[in-house]
Amino acid sequence: MTNPTAAILIIGDEILSGRTREGNAHFLAGELTRVGIDLKEIRIVADEVAAIANALNTLRGTYTHVFTSGGIGPTHDDITADAVAHALGVPLDVREDARALLAAHYAASGLEFNAARLRMARIPADAVLIENPISAAPGFSIGNVHVLAGVPSIFQAMVASVLPRLTGGRPVLSQTLRIDQGEGVIAEGLAGLAAEFPDLSIGSYPFIQNGAYGTNIVIRGTEARQIDAAMTRLSTLFPKEAR
Amino acid sequence: MTNPTAAILIIGDEILSGRTREGNAHFLAGELTRVGIDLKEIRIVADEVAAIANALNTLRGTYTHVFTSGGIGPTHDDITADAVAHALGVPLDVREDARALLAAHYAASGLEFNAARLRMARIPADAVLIENPISAAPGFSIGNVHVLAGVPSIFQAMVASVLPRLTGGRPVLSQTLRIDQGEGVIAEGLAGLAAEFPDLSIGSYPFIQNGAYGTNIVIRGTEARQIDAAMTRLSTLFPKEAR
Repeated sequence: MTNPTAAILIIGDEILSGRTREGNAHFLAGELTRVGIDLKEIRIVADEVAAIANALNTLRGTYTHVFTSGGIGPTHDDITADAVAHALGVPLDVREDARALLAAHYAASGLEFNAARLRMARIPADAVLIENPISAAPGFSIGNVHVLAGVPSIFQAMVASVLPRLTGGRPVLSQTLRIDQGEGVIAEGLAGLAAEFPDLSIGSYPFIQNGAYGTNIVIRGTEARQIDAAMTRLSTLFPKEAR
Repeated sequence: MTNPTAAILIIGDEILSGRTREGNAHFLAGELTRVGIDLKEIRIVADEVAAIANALNTLRGTYTHVFTSGGIGPTHDDITADAVAHALGVPLDVREDARALLAAHYAASGLEFNAARLRMARIPADAVLIENPISAAPGFSIGNVHVLAGVPSIFQAMVASVLPRLTGGRPVLSQTLRIDQGEGVIAEGLAGLAAEFPDLSIGSYPFIQNGAYGTNIVIRGTEARQIDAAMTRLSTLFPKEAR
Protein backbone atom coordinates (compact mmCIF):
# COMPACT_ATOMS: atom_id res chain seq x y z
CA MET A 1 0.00 0.00 0.00
CA THR A 2 1.47 3.31 -0.99
CA ASN A 3 0.82 6.53 0.83
CA PRO A 4 -1.49 9.25 -0.48
CA THR A 5 0.39 12.09 -2.20
CA ALA A 6 0.08 15.85 -2.06
CA ALA A 7 1.18 19.10 -3.63
CA ILE A 8 1.16 22.59 -2.18
CA LEU A 9 0.36 25.61 -4.36
CA ILE A 10 1.41 28.96 -2.93
CA ILE A 11 -0.19 32.08 -4.37
CA GLY A 12 2.93 34.06 -3.98
CA ASP A 13 3.82 37.44 -5.53
CA GLU A 14 5.37 38.24 -2.17
CA ILE A 15 7.61 35.19 -2.32
CA LEU A 16 8.51 35.67 -6.00
CA SER A 17 9.61 39.27 -5.38
CA GLY A 18 12.00 38.08 -2.68
CA ARG A 19 10.27 40.19 -0.06
CA THR A 20 8.94 37.30 2.02
CA ARG A 21 10.52 33.95 2.77
CA GLU A 22 8.15 31.04 2.29
CA GLY A 23 6.96 29.52 5.56
CA ASN A 24 3.50 27.97 5.09
CA ALA A 25 4.65 25.18 2.80
CA HIS A 26 7.46 24.47 5.23
CA PHE A 27 4.96 24.12 8.09
CA LEU A 28 2.54 21.95 6.10
CA ALA A 29 5.39 19.77 4.79
CA GLY A 30 6.19 18.73 8.35
CA GLU A 31 2.53 18.06 9.17
CA LEU A 32 2.01 15.93 6.05
CA THR A 33 5.11 13.85 6.82
CA ARG A 34 3.72 13.27 10.30
CA VAL A 35 0.39 11.86 9.03
CA GLY A 36 1.84 9.78 6.19
CA ILE A 37 0.83 11.90 3.20
CA ASP A 38 3.79 12.17 0.82
CA LEU A 39 4.40 15.74 -0.28
CA LYS A 40 5.73 15.45 -3.84
CA GLU A 41 5.76 19.02 -5.12
CA ILE A 42 5.51 22.65 -4.08
CA ARG A 43 4.70 25.35 -6.62
CA ILE A 44 4.79 29.06 -6.05
CA VAL A 45 3.01 31.06 -8.74
CA ALA A 46 2.10 34.71 -9.31
CA ASP A 47 -1.17 36.23 -8.14
CA GLU A 48 -2.80 35.73 -11.55
CA VAL A 49 -5.97 33.73 -12.24
CA ALA A 50 -4.49 31.91 -15.25
CA ALA A 51 -1.28 30.95 -13.43
CA ILE A 52 -3.20 29.66 -10.41
CA ALA A 53 -5.84 27.80 -12.45
CA ASN A 54 -3.30 26.13 -14.75
CA ALA A 55 -1.11 24.94 -11.90
CA LEU A 56 -4.16 23.75 -9.97
CA ASN A 57 -5.50 21.69 -12.84
CA THR A 58 -2.17 19.93 -13.32
CA LEU A 59 -1.61 19.29 -9.62
CA ARG A 60 -5.13 18.08 -8.76
CA GLY A 61 -4.91 15.58 -11.62
CA THR A 62 -1.54 14.30 -10.45
CA TYR A 63 -1.71 14.05 -6.65
CA THR A 64 -4.20 12.79 -4.07
CA HIS A 65 -4.48 16.25 -2.48
CA VAL A 66 -3.64 19.83 -3.36
CA PHE A 67 -3.39 22.52 -0.69
CA THR A 68 -3.38 26.19 -1.66
CA SER A 69 -2.19 29.07 0.50
CA GLY A 70 -3.08 32.72 0.13
CA GLY A 71 -5.37 35.02 -1.81
CA ILE A 72 -8.70 34.47 -0.03
CA GLY A 73 -9.01 37.83 1.75
CA PRO A 74 -11.25 40.83 0.99
CA THR A 75 -8.97 42.94 -1.23
CA HIS A 76 -8.79 43.35 -5.02
CA ASP A 77 -5.72 41.09 -5.24
CA ASP A 78 -7.48 38.16 -3.53
CA ILE A 79 -8.39 36.00 -6.51
CA THR A 80 -7.78 32.43 -5.38
CA ALA A 81 -11.47 31.50 -5.00
CA ASP A 82 -12.12 32.86 -8.51
CA ALA A 83 -9.16 30.89 -9.89
CA VAL A 84 -10.29 27.67 -8.18
CA ALA A 85 -13.87 28.08 -9.48
CA HIS A 86 -12.48 28.80 -12.94
CA ALA A 87 -10.16 25.77 -12.86
CA LEU A 88 -12.92 23.43 -11.68
CA GLY A 89 -15.61 24.94 -13.88
CA VAL A 90 -17.98 25.63 -10.99
CA PRO A 91 -19.90 28.81 -10.15
CA LEU A 92 -18.79 31.05 -7.29
CA ASP A 93 -21.40 32.93 -5.27
CA VAL A 94 -21.95 34.18 -1.75
CA ARG A 95 -23.00 31.15 0.25
CA GLU A 96 -25.43 31.55 3.13
CA ASP A 97 -23.50 29.48 5.68
CA ALA A 98 -20.28 31.38 5.05
CA ARG A 99 -22.14 34.71 5.10
CA ALA A 100 -23.69 33.79 8.46
CA LEU A 101 -20.27 32.92 9.94
CA LEU A 102 -18.88 36.29 8.89
CA ALA A 103 -21.99 38.22 10.00
CA ALA A 104 -21.77 36.70 13.47
CA HIS A 105 -18.05 37.42 13.71
CA TYR A 106 -18.36 41.06 12.67
CA ALA A 107 -21.41 41.62 14.88
CA ALA A 108 -19.51 40.23 17.87
CA SER A 109 -16.45 42.34 17.17
CA GLY A 110 -18.33 45.53 16.30
CA LEU A 111 -16.91 45.68 12.77
CA GLU A 112 -18.83 46.67 9.69
CA PHE A 113 -19.81 43.77 7.44
CA ASN A 114 -19.10 45.67 4.23
CA ALA A 115 -19.02 44.63 0.56
CA ALA A 116 -15.28 43.82 0.62
CA ARG A 117 -15.73 41.46 3.55
CA LEU A 118 -18.76 39.86 1.89
CA ARG A 119 -16.40 38.71 -0.91
CA MET A 120 -14.96 36.24 1.60
CA ALA A 121 -18.32 34.43 1.72
CA ARG A 122 -18.04 33.50 -1.96
CA ILE A 123 -17.67 29.71 -1.81
CA PRO A 124 -18.38 27.11 -4.53
CA ALA A 125 -21.72 25.36 -3.91
CA ASP A 126 -20.28 21.85 -3.38
CA ALA A 127 -17.34 22.90 -1.22
CA VAL A 128 -16.96 21.95 2.44
CA LEU A 129 -15.97 24.89 4.66
CA ILE A 130 -12.68 24.85 6.58
CA GLU A 131 -12.96 26.54 9.94
CA ASN A 132 -11.04 29.74 10.64
CA PRO A 133 -11.00 30.21 14.42
CA ILE A 134 -9.03 33.44 14.14
CA SER A 135 -10.81 35.75 11.71
CA ALA A 136 -13.88 33.67 10.76
CA ALA A 137 -13.49 33.89 6.94
CA PRO A 138 -13.46 30.20 6.03
CA GLY A 139 -11.27 28.19 3.72
CA PHE A 140 -12.87 25.39 1.75
CA SER A 141 -12.29 21.92 0.34
CA ILE A 142 -13.70 21.06 -3.07
CA GLY A 143 -12.89 17.65 -4.49
CA ASN A 144 -9.22 17.08 -3.66
CA VAL A 145 -8.41 20.80 -3.48
CA HIS A 146 -8.06 22.46 -0.06
CA VAL A 147 -8.05 26.26 -0.12
CA LEU A 148 -6.35 27.84 2.90
CA ALA A 149 -5.48 31.38 3.98
CA GLY A 150 -2.02 32.91 3.61
CA VAL A 151 -1.59 34.58 7.02
CA PRO A 152 0.58 32.02 8.82
CA SER A 153 -1.43 31.78 12.06
CA ILE A 154 -4.67 31.30 10.10
CA PHE A 155 -3.02 28.88 7.67
CA GLN A 156 -1.83 26.75 10.57
CA ALA A 157 -5.26 26.78 12.23
CA MET A 158 -6.87 25.70 8.95
CA VAL A 159 -4.32 22.89 8.53
CA ALA A 160 -5.36 21.70 12.00
CA SER A 161 -9.01 21.76 10.87
CA VAL A 162 -8.59 19.97 7.57
CA LEU A 163 -5.88 17.35 8.17
CA PRO A 164 -7.93 15.12 10.51
CA ARG A 165 -10.49 14.74 7.68
CA LEU A 166 -7.97 13.23 5.31
CA THR A 167 -6.88 9.61 5.18
CA GLY A 168 -3.21 9.38 5.96
CA GLY A 169 -0.76 6.61 5.32
CA ARG A 170 2.26 5.27 7.11
CA PRO A 171 4.21 8.15 8.56
CA VAL A 172 7.63 8.56 7.01
CA LEU A 173 10.19 8.23 9.77
CA SER A 174 13.70 9.57 9.56
CA GLN A 175 16.97 9.50 11.40
CA THR A 176 19.94 11.74 10.79
CA LEU A 177 23.65 11.15 11.31
CA ARG A 178 26.07 14.02 11.09
CA ILE A 179 29.46 13.10 9.66
CA ASP A 180 32.24 15.65 9.82
CA GLN A 181 33.59 14.77 6.41
CA GLY A 182 32.84 16.05 2.93
CA GLU A 183 30.54 14.12 0.61
CA GLY A 184 33.46 13.17 -1.63
CA VAL A 185 35.00 11.06 1.14
CA ILE A 186 31.87 9.15 2.09
CA ALA A 187 30.13 8.88 -1.29
CA GLU A 188 31.30 5.37 -2.12
CA GLY A 189 30.34 3.82 1.22
CA LEU A 190 27.03 5.63 1.08
CA ALA A 191 26.20 4.30 -2.39
CA GLY A 192 26.83 0.78 -1.07
CA LEU A 193 24.49 1.41 1.85
CA ALA A 194 21.77 2.73 -0.48
CA ALA A 195 22.08 -0.45 -2.59
CA GLU A 196 21.90 -2.58 0.57
CA PHE A 197 18.65 -0.93 1.73
CA PRO A 198 16.63 -0.35 -1.46
CA ASP A 199 13.38 0.34 0.47
CA LEU A 200 14.89 3.29 2.31
CA SER A 201 15.66 6.74 0.99
CA ILE A 202 19.18 7.75 1.93
CA GLY A 203 19.84 11.44 1.42
CA SER A 204 23.18 13.16 1.68
CA TYR A 205 23.16 16.86 2.58
CA PRO A 206 26.52 18.59 2.61
CA PHE A 207 27.23 21.69 4.63
CA ILE A 208 30.13 23.98 5.37
CA GLN A 209 30.61 25.03 9.00
CA ASN A 210 33.48 27.21 10.17
CA GLY A 211 35.20 26.48 6.88
CA ALA A 212 35.04 22.69 7.33
CA TYR A 213 32.99 20.30 5.21
CA GLY A 214 30.44 18.03 6.79
CA THR A 215 27.49 15.95 5.66
CA ASN A 216 24.14 15.12 7.22
CA ILE A 217 22.91 11.71 6.20
CA VAL A 218 19.15 11.40 6.47
CA ILE A 219 17.66 7.92 6.27
CA ARG A 220 13.92 7.82 5.61
CA GLY A 221 11.39 5.03 5.43
CA THR A 222 8.24 3.66 7.00
CA GLU A 223 9.84 0.69 8.85
CA ALA A 224 11.53 1.82 12.07
CA ARG A 225 13.46 -1.44 12.38
CA GLN A 226 14.87 -1.13 8.87
CA ILE A 227 15.97 2.45 9.54
CA ASP A 228 17.64 1.33 12.78
CA ALA A 229 19.52 -1.39 10.88
CA ALA A 230 20.70 1.07 8.24
CA MET A 231 21.78 3.57 10.90
CA THR A 232 23.81 0.86 12.62
CA ARG A 233 25.52 -0.01 9.32
CA LEU A 234 26.13 3.68 8.68
CA SER A 235 27.79 4.12 12.09
CA THR A 236 29.99 1.11 11.36
CA LEU A 237 30.98 2.48 7.97
CA PHE A 238 31.87 5.85 9.43
CA PRO A 239 32.91 5.29 13.06
CA LYS A 240 32.73 8.26 15.38
CA GLU A 241 36.50 8.76 15.57
CA ALA A 242 36.65 9.05 11.78
CA ARG A 243 33.62 11.29 11.60
CA MET B 1 9.63 46.34 -23.64
CA THR B 2 8.86 43.62 -21.17
CA ASN B 3 11.40 42.16 -18.79
CA PRO B 4 12.92 38.71 -19.22
CA THR B 5 11.25 36.05 -17.07
CA ALA B 6 12.57 33.25 -14.90
CA ALA B 7 11.66 30.17 -12.92
CA ILE B 8 13.55 28.46 -10.14
CA LEU B 9 13.53 24.66 -9.81
CA ILE B 10 14.62 23.33 -6.43
CA ILE B 11 15.67 19.69 -6.22
CA GLY B 12 14.25 19.30 -2.81
CA ASP B 13 13.52 16.09 -0.90
CA GLU B 14 14.82 17.95 2.13
CA ILE B 15 12.29 20.74 1.65
CA LEU B 16 9.40 18.38 0.85
CA SER B 17 9.98 16.37 4.04
CA GLY B 18 9.70 19.56 6.09
CA ARG B 19 13.20 19.12 7.47
CA THR B 20 14.72 22.18 5.80
CA ARG B 21 13.17 25.56 5.12
CA GLU B 22 13.76 26.80 1.59
CA GLY B 23 16.31 29.61 1.38
CA ASN B 24 18.05 29.53 -2.01
CA ALA B 25 15.00 30.52 -4.04
CA HIS B 26 14.38 33.30 -1.52
CA PHE B 27 17.91 34.62 -2.06
CA LEU B 28 17.76 34.38 -5.85
CA ALA B 29 14.28 35.97 -5.95
CA GLY B 30 15.73 39.12 -4.44
CA GLU B 31 18.69 39.14 -6.84
CA LEU B 32 16.47 38.67 -9.89
CA THR B 33 14.19 41.53 -8.80
CA ARG B 34 17.28 43.72 -8.47
CA VAL B 35 18.45 43.08 -12.06
CA GLY B 36 15.02 43.28 -13.69
CA ILE B 37 14.37 39.61 -14.41
CA ASP B 38 10.79 38.76 -13.44
CA LEU B 39 10.61 35.59 -11.36
CA LYS B 40 7.29 33.99 -12.30
CA GLU B 41 7.41 30.57 -10.69
CA ILE B 42 9.25 28.43 -8.15
CA ARG B 43 8.91 24.66 -8.20
CA ILE B 44 10.22 22.26 -5.61
CA VAL B 45 10.29 18.65 -6.77
CA ALA B 46 11.55 15.34 -5.40
CA ASP B 47 15.07 14.03 -6.05
CA GLU B 48 13.87 11.87 -8.97
CA VAL B 49 15.14 12.09 -12.55
CA ALA B 50 11.65 12.00 -14.09
CA ALA B 51 10.28 14.69 -11.76
CA ILE B 52 13.25 16.98 -12.41
CA ALA B 53 13.30 16.41 -16.18
CA ASN B 54 9.55 16.94 -16.62
CA ALA B 55 9.53 20.16 -14.62
CA LEU B 56 12.62 21.39 -16.44
CA ASN B 57 11.14 20.81 -19.88
CA THR B 58 7.99 22.73 -19.01
CA LEU B 59 9.82 25.61 -17.35
CA ARG B 60 12.56 26.08 -19.97
CA GLY B 61 9.86 26.25 -22.66
CA THR B 62 7.88 28.85 -20.73
CA TYR B 63 10.39 31.30 -19.27
CA THR B 64 13.50 33.15 -20.46
CA HIS B 65 15.67 31.46 -17.81
CA VAL B 66 15.46 28.49 -15.47
CA PHE B 67 17.74 28.18 -12.44
CA THR B 68 18.09 24.87 -10.65
CA SER B 69 19.43 24.35 -7.14
CA GLY B 70 20.80 21.16 -5.66
CA GLY B 71 21.81 17.66 -6.63
CA ILE B 72 25.19 18.26 -8.29
CA GLY B 73 27.49 16.76 -5.64
CA PRO B 74 29.38 13.45 -5.60
CA THR B 75 26.88 11.15 -3.85
CA HIS B 76 24.42 8.57 -5.21
CA ASP B 77 21.48 10.95 -4.71
CA ASP B 78 23.05 13.70 -6.86
CA ILE B 79 21.18 13.24 -10.12
CA THR B 80 20.53 16.75 -11.39
CA ALA B 81 23.14 16.68 -14.17
CA ASP B 82 21.70 13.35 -15.36
CA ALA B 83 18.18 14.77 -15.28
CA VAL B 84 19.20 17.91 -17.20
CA ALA B 85 21.01 15.84 -19.85
CA HIS B 86 17.98 13.56 -20.10
CA ALA B 87 15.58 16.50 -20.41
CA LEU B 88 17.66 18.21 -23.09
CA GLY B 89 18.56 15.01 -24.92
CA VAL B 90 22.31 15.62 -24.70
CA PRO B 91 25.09 13.24 -23.61
CA LEU B 92 26.76 13.62 -20.23
CA ASP B 93 30.44 12.75 -19.85
CA VAL B 94 33.43 13.82 -17.82
CA ARG B 95 34.65 17.02 -19.46
CA GLU B 96 38.35 17.83 -19.45
CA ASP B 97 38.08 21.46 -18.31
CA ALA B 98 35.89 20.50 -15.35
CA ARG B 99 38.17 17.57 -14.49
CA ALA B 100 41.19 19.89 -14.51
CA LEU B 101 39.46 22.36 -12.17
CA LEU B 102 38.71 19.59 -9.70
CA ALA B 103 42.16 17.99 -10.01
CA ALA B 104 43.86 21.31 -9.22
CA HIS B 105 41.54 21.92 -6.27
CA TYR B 106 42.07 18.49 -4.70
CA ALA B 107 45.83 18.61 -5.33
CA ALA B 108 46.02 21.99 -3.59
CA SER B 109 43.95 20.82 -0.63
CA GLY B 110 45.60 17.41 -0.30
CA LEU B 111 42.36 15.52 -0.90
CA GLU B 112 42.02 12.35 -2.94
CA PHE B 113 40.45 12.89 -6.38
CA ASN B 114 38.38 9.71 -6.23
CA ALA B 115 35.70 8.25 -8.48
CA ALA B 116 32.85 9.90 -6.54
CA ARG B 117 34.43 13.33 -6.93
CA LEU B 118 35.05 12.69 -10.62
CA ARG B 119 31.26 12.48 -11.08
CA MET B 120 31.19 16.24 -10.52
CA ALA B 121 33.19 16.73 -13.75
CA ARG B 122 30.34 15.26 -15.81
CA ILE B 123 29.14 18.28 -17.81
CA PRO B 124 27.18 18.36 -21.09
CA ALA B 125 29.49 19.14 -24.05
CA ASP B 126 27.86 22.47 -25.02
CA ALA B 127 27.44 23.79 -21.49
CA VAL B 128 29.29 26.84 -20.15
CA LEU B 129 30.81 26.28 -16.71
CA ILE B 130 29.70 28.37 -13.72
CA GLU B 131 32.54 29.09 -11.33
CA ASN B 132 32.46 27.65 -7.82
CA PRO B 133 35.01 29.63 -5.79
CA ILE B 134 34.31 27.59 -2.65
CA SER B 135 34.65 23.91 -3.49
CA ALA B 136 35.63 24.03 -7.20
CA ALA B 137 32.97 21.64 -8.55
CA PRO B 138 31.36 23.83 -11.20
CA GLY B 139 27.75 24.52 -12.08
CA PHE B 140 26.86 24.98 -15.73
CA SER B 141 24.59 26.85 -18.11
CA ILE B 142 23.16 25.02 -21.10
CA GLY B 143 20.73 26.91 -23.30
CA ASN B 144 18.50 28.84 -20.92
CA VAL B 145 19.05 26.40 -18.03
CA HIS B 146 21.46 27.34 -15.24
CA VAL B 147 22.44 24.49 -12.93
CA LEU B 148 23.61 25.61 -9.48
CA ALA B 149 24.66 23.88 -6.26
CA GLY B 150 22.37 23.45 -3.27
CA VAL B 151 24.71 24.40 -0.41
CA PRO B 152 23.63 28.00 0.27
CA SER B 153 27.09 29.60 0.29
CA ILE B 154 28.01 27.90 -2.99
CA PHE B 155 24.61 28.65 -4.51
CA GLN B 156 25.06 32.33 -3.72
CA ALA B 157 28.58 32.40 -5.15
CA MET B 158 27.32 30.77 -8.35
CA VAL B 159 24.48 33.28 -8.62
CA ALA B 160 27.12 36.01 -8.43
CA SER B 161 29.02 34.29 -11.27
CA VAL B 162 26.09 33.72 -13.60
CA LEU B 163 23.84 36.77 -13.16
CA PRO B 164 26.22 39.29 -14.80
CA ARG B 165 26.12 37.16 -17.97
CA LEU B 166 22.37 37.52 -18.35
CA THR B 167 20.53 40.44 -19.91
CA GLY B 168 18.36 42.06 -17.31
CA GLY B 169 15.44 44.39 -17.71
CA ARG B 170 14.08 47.30 -15.77
CA PRO B 171 14.41 46.57 -12.07
CA VAL B 172 11.07 46.25 -10.32
CA LEU B 173 10.94 48.88 -7.61
CA SER B 174 8.66 48.71 -4.62
CA GLN B 175 7.51 50.79 -1.70
CA THR B 176 5.61 49.54 1.32
CA LEU B 177 3.13 51.31 3.60
CA ARG B 178 2.07 49.69 6.81
CA ILE B 179 -1.53 50.41 7.78
CA ASP B 180 -2.71 49.36 11.22
CA GLN B 181 -6.11 48.29 10.00
CA GLY B 182 -7.49 45.02 8.70
CA GLU B 183 -7.88 44.43 4.98
CA GLY B 184 -11.66 44.55 5.25
CA VAL B 185 -11.54 48.22 6.23
CA ILE B 186 -9.23 49.38 3.48
CA ALA B 187 -10.22 47.05 0.64
CA GLU B 188 -12.56 49.50 -1.12
CA GLY B 189 -10.13 52.42 -1.17
CA LEU B 190 -7.37 50.08 -2.27
CA ALA B 191 -9.40 48.73 -5.20
CA GLY B 192 -9.94 52.33 -6.34
CA LEU B 193 -6.22 53.00 -6.13
CA ALA B 194 -5.42 49.87 -8.14
CA ALA B 195 -7.87 51.02 -10.84
CA GLU B 196 -6.29 54.48 -10.84
CA PHE B 197 -2.78 53.08 -11.40
CA PRO B 198 -3.24 50.16 -13.80
CA ASP B 199 0.51 49.93 -14.60
CA LEU B 200 1.42 49.28 -10.97
CA SER B 201 0.95 46.11 -8.98
CA ILE B 202 -0.67 46.90 -5.65
CA GLY B 203 -0.45 44.02 -3.22
CA SER B 204 -2.20 43.81 0.13
CA TYR B 205 -0.60 41.58 2.78
CA PRO B 206 -2.51 41.22 6.01
CA PHE B 207 -0.87 40.35 9.28
CA ILE B 208 -1.82 39.87 12.91
CA GLN B 209 0.46 41.43 15.50
CA ASN B 210 -0.24 41.30 19.23
CA GLY B 211 -3.78 40.32 18.40
CA ALA B 212 -4.42 43.37 16.20
CA TYR B 213 -4.98 43.30 12.44
CA GLY B 214 -2.75 45.24 10.11
CA THR B 215 -1.93 45.31 6.43
CA ASN B 216 1.24 45.97 4.47
CA ILE B 217 0.51 47.57 1.13
CA VAL B 218 3.29 46.95 -1.38
CA ILE B 219 3.28 49.01 -4.57
CA ARG B 220 5.48 47.65 -7.34
CA GLY B 221 6.42 48.93 -10.75
CA THR B 222 9.31 50.06 -12.92
CA GLU B 223 8.56 53.83 -12.85
CA ALA B 224 9.73 55.40 -9.61
CA ARG B 225 7.68 58.55 -10.20
CA GLN B 226 4.49 56.56 -10.70
CA ILE B 227 5.12 54.60 -7.50
CA ASP B 228 5.71 57.87 -5.63
CA ALA B 229 2.41 59.25 -6.95
CA ALA B 230 0.52 56.12 -5.87
CA MET B 231 2.16 56.17 -2.44
CA THR B 232 1.08 59.79 -1.99
CA ARG B 233 -2.49 58.89 -2.94
CA LEU B 234 -2.34 55.92 -0.56
CA SER B 235 -1.21 58.12 2.34
CA THR B 236 -4.07 60.53 1.57
CA LEU B 237 -6.60 57.69 1.49
CA PHE B 238 -5.37 56.33 4.81
CA PRO B 239 -3.92 59.25 6.78
CA LYS B 240 -1.50 58.38 9.55
CA GLU B 241 -3.93 59.14 12.36
CA ALA B 242 -6.42 56.65 10.90
CA ARG B 243 -3.76 54.03 10.24
